[in-house]
Amino acid sequence: MASESGKLWGGRFVGAVDPIMEKFNSSITYDQHLWEVDVQGSKAYSRGLQKAGILTKTEMDQILQGLDKVAEEWAQGTFKLNPNDEDIHTANERRLKELIGETAGKLHTGRSRNDQVVTDLRLWMRQNCSTLSALLRELIRTMVDRAEAERDILFPGYTHLQRAQPIRWSHWILSHAVALTRDSERLLEVQKRINVLPLGSGAIAGNPLGVDRELLRAELNFGAITLNSMDATSERDFVAEFLFWASLCMTHLSRMAEDLILYGTKEFNLVQLSDAYSTGSSLMPQKKNPDSLELIRSKAGRVFGRCAGLLMTLKGLPSTYNKDLQEDKEAVFEVSNTMSAVIQVATGVISTLQIHRENMARALSPDMLATDLAYYLVRKGMPFRQAHEASGKAVFMAETKGVALNQLSLQELQTISPLFSGDVSHVWDYGHSVEQYAALGGTARSSVDWQIGQVRALLGAQQA
Amino acid sequence: MASESGKLWGGRFVGAVDPIMEKFNSSITYDQHLWEVDVQGSKAYSRGLQKAGILTKTEMDQILQGLDKVAEEWAQGTFKLNPNDEDIHTANERRLKELIGETAGKLHTGRSRNDQVVTDLRLWMRQNCSTLSALLRELIRTMVDRAEAERDILFPGYTHLQRAQPIRWSHWILSHAVALTRDSERLLEVQKRINVLPLGSGAIAGNPLGVDRELLRAELNFGAITLNSMDATSERDFVAEFLFWASLCMTHLSRMAEDLILYGTKEFNLVQLSDAYSTGSSLMPQKKNPDSLELIRSKAGRVFGRCAGLLMTLKGLPSTYNKDLQEDKEAVFEVSNTMSAVIQVATGVISTLQIHRENMARALSPDMLATDLAYYLVRKGMPFRQAHEASGKAVFMAETKGVALNQLSLQELQTISPLFSGDVSHVWDYGHSVEQYAALGGTARSSVDWQIGQVRALLGAQQA
Amino acid sequence: MASESGKLWGGRFVGAVDPIMEKFNSSITYDQHLWEVDVQGSKAYSRGLQKAGILTKTEMDQILQGLDKVAEEWAQGTFKLNPNDEDIHTANERRLKELIGETAGKLHTGRSRNDQVVTDLRLWMRQNCSTLSALLRELIRTMVDRAEAERDILFPGYTHLQRAQPIRWSHWILSHAVALTRDSERLLEVQKRINVLPLGSGAIAGNPLGVDRELLRAELNFGAITLNSMDATSERDFVAEFLFWASLCMTHLSRMAEDLILYGTKEFNLVQLSDAYSTGSSLMPQKKNPDSLELIRSKAGRVFGRCAGLLMTLKGLPSTYNKDLQEDKEAVFEVSNTMSAVIQVATGVISTLQIHRENMARALSPDMLATDLAYYLVRKGMPFRQAHEASGKAVFMAETKGVALNQLSLQELQTISPLFSGDVSHVWDYGHSVEQYAALGGTARSSVDWQIGQVRALLGAQQA
Amino acid sequence: MASESGKLWGGRFVGAVDPIMEKFNSSITYDQHLWEVDVQGSKAYSRGLQKAGILTKTEMDQILQGLDKVAEEWAQGTFKLNPNDEDIHTANERRLKELIGETAGKLHTGRSRNDQVVTDLRLWMRQNCSTLSALLRELIRTMVDRAEAERDILFPGYTHLQRAQPIRWSHWILSHAVALTRDSERLLEVQKRINVLPLGSGAIAGNPLGVDRELLRAELNFGAITLNSMDATSERDFVAEFLFWASLCMTHLSRMAEDLILYGTKEFNLVQLSDAYSTGSSLMPQKKNPDSLELIRSKAGRVFGRCAGLLMTLKGLPSTYNKDLQEDKEAVFEVSNTMSAVIQVATGVISTLQIHRENMARALSPDMLATDLAYYLVRKGMPFRQAHEASGKAVFMAETKGVALNQLSLQELQTISPLFSGDVSHVWDYGHSVEQYAALGGTARSSVDWQIGQVRALLGAQQA
Repeated sequence: MASESGKLWGGRFVGAVDPIMEKFNSSITYDQHLWEVDVQGSKAYSRGLQKAGILTKTEMDQILQGLDKVAEEWAQGTFKLNPNDEDIHTANERRLKELIGETAGKLHTGRSRNDQVVTDLRLWMRQNCSTLSALLRELIRTMVDRAEAERDILFPGYTHLQRAQPIRWSHWILSHAVALTRDSERLLEVQKRINVLPLGSGAIAGNPLGVDRELLRAELNFGAITLNSMDATSERDFVAEFLFWASLCMTHLSRMAEDLILYGTKEFNLVQLSDAYSTGSSLMPQKKNPDSLELIRSKAGRVFGRCAGLLMTLKGLPSTYNKDLQEDKEAVFEVSNTMSAVIQVATGVISTLQIHRENMARALSPDMLATDLAYYLVRKGMPFRQAHEASGKAVFMAETKGVALNQLSLQELQTISPLFSGDVSHVWDYGHSVEQYAALGGTARSSVDWQIGQVRALLGAQQA
Repeated sequence: MASESGKLWGGRFVGAVDPIMEKFNSSITYDQHLWEVDVQGSKAYSRGLQKAGILTKTEMDQILQGLDKVAEEWAQGTFKLNPNDEDIHTANERRLKELIGETAGKLHTGRSRNDQVVTDLRLWMRQNCSTLSALLRELIRTMVDRAEAERDILFPGYTHLQRAQPIRWSHWILSHAVALTRDSERLLEVQKRINVLPLGSGAIAGNPLGVDRELLRAELNFGAITLNSMDATSERDFVAEFLFWASLCMTHLSRMAEDLILYGTKEFNLVQLSDAYSTGSSLMPQKKNPDSLELIRSKAGRVFGRCAGLLMTLKGLPSTYNKDLQEDKEAVFEVSNTMSAVIQVATGVISTLQIHRENMARALSPDMLATDLAYYLVRKGMPFRQAHEASGKAVFMAETKGVALNQLSLQELQTISPLFSGDVSHVWDYGHSVEQYAALGGTARSSVDWQIGQVRALLGAQQA
Repeated sequence: MASESGKLWGGRFVGAVDPIMEKFNSSITYDQHLWEVDVQGSKAYSRGLQKAGILTKTEMDQILQGLDKVAEEWAQGTFKLNPNDEDIHTANERRLKELIGETAGKLHTGRSRNDQVVTDLRLWMRQNCSTLSALLRELIRTMVDRAEAERDILFPGYTHLQRAQPIRWSHWILSHAVALTRDSERLLEVQKRINVLPLGSGAIAGNPLGVDRELLRAELNFGAITLNSMDATSERDFVAEFLFWASLCMTHLSRMAEDLILYGTKEFNLVQLSDAYSTGSSLMPQKKNPDSLELIRSKAGRVFGRCAGLLMTLKGLPSTYNKDLQEDKEAVFEVSNTMSAVIQVATGVISTLQIHRENMARALSPDMLATDLAYYLVRKGMPFRQAHEASGKAVFMAETKGVALNQLSLQELQTISPLFSGDVSHVWDYGHSVEQYAALGGTARSSVDWQIGQVRALLGAQQA
Repeated sequence: MASESGKLWGGRFVGAVDPIMEKFNSSITYDQHLWEVDVQGSKAYSRGLQKAGILTKTEMDQILQGLDKVAEEWAQGTFKLNPNDEDIHTANERRLKELIGETAGKLHTGRSRNDQVVTDLRLWMRQNCSTLSALLRELIRTMVDRAEAERDILFPGYTHLQRAQPIRWSHWILSHAVALTRDSERLLEVQKRINVLPLGSGAIAGNPLGVDRELLRAELNFGAITLNSMDATSERDFVAEFLFWASLCMTHLSRMAEDLILYGTKEFNLVQLSDAYSTGSSLMPQKKNPDSLELIRSKAGRVFGRCAGLLMTLKGLPSTYNKDLQEDKEAVFEVSNTMSAVIQVATGVISTLQIHRENMARALSPDMLATDLAYYLVRKGMPFRQAHEASGKAVFMAETKGVALNQLSLQELQTISPLFSGDVSHVWDYGHSVEQYAALGGTARSSVDWQIGQVRALLGAQQA
């Protein structure tokens, strides 16, 4: 009948196969990245099947050798995809059958693509997160090394982008390094939750063959097994967590990039990017643009977009596996690649950045010591609120007279407070200023050294 | 000195070129999609240069022929990329120079990649949006055709997923079609703002050669020219608008997909997806899963993620071109492709969907007429609030007695209100029920016909 | 039985009422903002009921007067909420009944909260968007006035935050004003789609009383009526569009704020924020922080967050009204308030900003004319690519010699190209430089005047 | 001069104070939630100042008593805000001065609002997260209790919303409970990073008075101190992490809500929501809507919107404190309140939910045993791929004959495979089916018991 045949509606397509749907449904263009972990997972599963009595030892060996051959073909670039290989799992199983015959048909016993794909993804991400961890620690280490070497250089600390107080250049470097140590710590926590094995969960109800999931766990070197088969096949917390980890890490890197872009302007002129990380202009011959830093800054958007997208996809989904979850993999692959590039480029930028020491020194100005002037009065007994006001008056007096704050005479200062005396001159020494900030976390040399030690210890602990 | 050479910091890389940076910076892997519009833009610009006296007629002809040759190579797949071709613009210009020699070096006079790339992107998107517009209208038309053919079929309307009132099946179809007409309207507005020419804006200050931007506009068939060169080269509103357009359209399609997934469950059993848009299970032989609909639903996340990512990238950027803007293109390409596939798959799904008429009829139940029962009393003069309460009592009475609402005897009803009389039996006719809703926009047949007419008229107007 | 009574599960609550649920469900704390439009909508609907014969003239008058009294109580702050008033609609109807008795119970005939609430929200947003439109045009007008007055002031144009070319200060102002004209245009389009009447759609099936929706439309001064009752009660496109409009507008304002924060640093020192828009530091007496600009920049996040939140809420919802849609109102109210404040503060900032003309002039440097130097050679016949290279060599020569680009002698220049002659000295005049960019949209005075005229014309047309 | 006075630009406002700016800048309307922790922080800091020699014992005691009085006023609702109290910190300090005089002016010595506000926020969040942790564990415990009591009830497990395999109802409950245990674990990690003390970081450079930060830490019972003063005052990782924690937790609750909304439809009819968590319709007397579940589902959007907003605000910010960070607090307060309500309502829903056991049993159908039929053949030695195909043939045969799968005769089955014999009848027992899934994590009773034990152990460990 017309209304049930579909022919009436003038649609673009009526028939058994819609090529656009096939392409839409297929994931092989991107999930072939999983070829290696898919083989690993299948090898472990065939061992599980053998122990459960589903495979004989001979069958298992046949499958293991076949899978090794499949892997070899991928590794050598000789694996040939069929048009019907909609995903990496069917491709590998199809090839295995070509290689070893009907025994291949036993491999999937009790396994579903639902537990297979999430096992593969966890294996891939576990490996990838280790790489990212190492790259991130290398970046932090580069920053700490630099902080140690340059800890005697002072320059202006800014808040609200207004000159605030003199600080050590290393204190700035460490402020970003310390932020990244939190990312490094968080990544380990994400890895811990990635490192849980779902294999043996089947499609929804579990595994009916008595497969020993602890054996599978040990084979694949996971830290634990998932607790519930419905949850195991459909939760993507570990993906969401990874994407958010990357998003938060990128906000740190975007902020560091923003600082360096500013410090590298003609107006600030505190640092200069290496040529390797700059590019020219197609129109303006004099330009050298900080493209590397701008790209780092911009990727914060891309990475977060993937996190936002996945969460929206997950929201309101019914229980267990729905095809919506197929959105997870491209997000993971893209974000992993982006993070790897961004962290390595950031490492290159930091390790080749030139700093303009003289400009840094020149950029310090006496008004940045107004807080210290207030502390001078505090040390003479004045409550801080009054001292803050008195120092403010001195700033205003200097501005009015058109002189620098340290050019006010003692007599002039004494019109503001009789507590000023000759020793006020010590206030105007920038080196003396920073050394006051000796409480832990401050910009005094002892504290900077302490920070370096703390970060090094963290890195060591995380690596272990 | 060590601290300025960068060698001290133990970074992974010191030298003139960092291959990771090169890859990070390069856009040729994806912006080669722009080859055709890049050639179009360059051809128009060379005409502008000739009119401005920068090119002789001969030089212009040489360039035009060279560009045609470049385009031909792309079209035939013989264009060879060099490792140094960082983007499509440099690739095309490099090739042009190989083909016609030094004259090629005049093409970029007064032009910057900043105005070139955004011109290219607008040209590409203009074309692509026309295609998407046509696909979207085809989807709406398919839905309207189907609504027209099936307007005598009734089934339950749900609110809060609870059975609410009987409605026409076509009323449901039209509810989604009407939402899509707004998307269609919005896309035209986005296209209007895409269709504005930035070429002739240079890198920031404008064009110093007196190039006639109105001539460029006419050559490239744009609707208007941009007003300010700084804005023109760095605003990406049209990209953000397009990504949001797609995001909102996807929320509509995700909602339609959700309905159809539900209606296709064994429990609702109102519709059946064509095999062409379903897939089986690797584990469960009896399963037929609505993968097409789940993918549509899930893409809402992906598309919105790109929109979110771009807005975050744009936020807080300083004026004019920054390399951050390079994030725009992959978002546009991916979302365009996704929308094209989603709309076409949705069209296929709708045009091949089977409906289970008998189940639809069976799913109607007398309790869904409780509102009509209240209206019955309203028509007899009872204020609605009392009538609502009286009807509620009848519902409760029927539940208590374990009978259907229409099984209550007249005597029983009259214990609730004396206004009930023999004509209450008319209330229990579903066909009579829907015909009451004859105010415009309601589910009566006359209103459904009116809706069909309205949507057809809109489609006609939008196509024009 | 235990498993059905719920008593077994140790939950916090078993009983008829859960106070946390009541609060969770209630919207009266925020939707009371709708009191006035709720009364308006009800007045119009009572006129529709009278025409449909549901109300007598006397009953209608009674209701109209009662509603006026309700409004008066709200206006005078004497309206008293009951604990049971879960939303503004029930509160107003409850009060109406107290005032006029049982006739009040007729008002809701054929109306549902589903069509009532969305009518109210559209009325509220229509009014609010008009206000925002006017505020936005006032901001743009302020910018254009300023651009007109200060168009002879030159300063550096930046790309990638690197000094690029000399531009007029007004060109910078206009670059932001032009972006805002697009927001102004888009807001009109959003308003057009807000201005569509859903009243008369009932809960889902429509209105069964023959209410004349065109009469309702005319009473409430809407531009059109919604087409489909299911869509009308559950689509929130106009909310999503408004939130996205605000998000995109905020990216523009965040970029302008970022520029001004940078230009107001000691290092750039091009502008100074009025004291009215700055604040001091609780610790550092010398600080004056651009808090107004930072807040503007930051609100881009908040506003976008609301847009993201709504889209995620909408994604995958089944058809028609679901309580999820209750999330719309707080988003609208918060974003409306934020936009109103942001636009007004931005207007205040722009109208009181001081500029440092001398610093602007001083910030121009000869290397910014390198592009013009290339054009000089182009005008002598050299292809641009060669000219770009030649100019680049001159920049390098000057850097190597440690002199400004315009300090190179003619002889030195001629070692780069024999095309250099005495007239090269004209290149070094900044005023001459900007005047070259006379193509429409460029930074020449004629083009700046043209831009001012264009924006004024747009504002005029939008206001009409 | 006109162009510098601002008078020319026709702006809305010229003068010393812009009331809109004041309101825009002020945070007292929401940050007064911090009154208690602000007093706590100040008390600890005054002890630090005393040890550092800035305060005498007497002065410290005076301040401590004054602060206790301030707290008392807040607790009793007698604290009176001044119009000039822009935030809670200035309000409390202002009041302290009124109460104890000039000594109050010493309290802020070496402290900045930058380290003060972030200390307050961490204190508030630490307390709040403990509350949320307890509420979340209570929800999980309620679910586990219910799972334990109802573990003998079977019902259909769905994948892709299609009936898949019989499972225990408790297996479904546990699938959501297990997801929530990850949220519970993650919240502890977030708390660990919240529980780090920034006090003693000043505005940027640190504390110059030798304040003992370890003493402050001990006083306020923090787990550690921040490492770098610049980072400490401007990082909001702990806020972003909390907002993301809430977002991910909400995706879990949104999925559980979606399931329950579906299971509660007339069509599924597996569960019934308690009246306490349902609401009626203003129009349709027979309706009972699952508003509680819809609100839970929808809040996933709101909560994620706040996360998205904060990350966008953070992106690209320059180092150290910028006023943009003021956006953190409203996000935290709103999300904390939302999570508290959502979790409690979810607990109420779960503990009062009725299940329809008979419907659950009736909903099981023999086609859901097709996978088990395949396993039957596997156990007889057939490779799974062939068994899957054979079972598929049986499903098709049953459909074609219009009988249930278990109605096929042995003879009919043997036409598909000779391996079928009389014992195939055991396959059709649902109880037998679920008991096969005895591998850990499956739906067999032993595994469900194991899961209950695992989750209880986790809860115990987390509580400790």
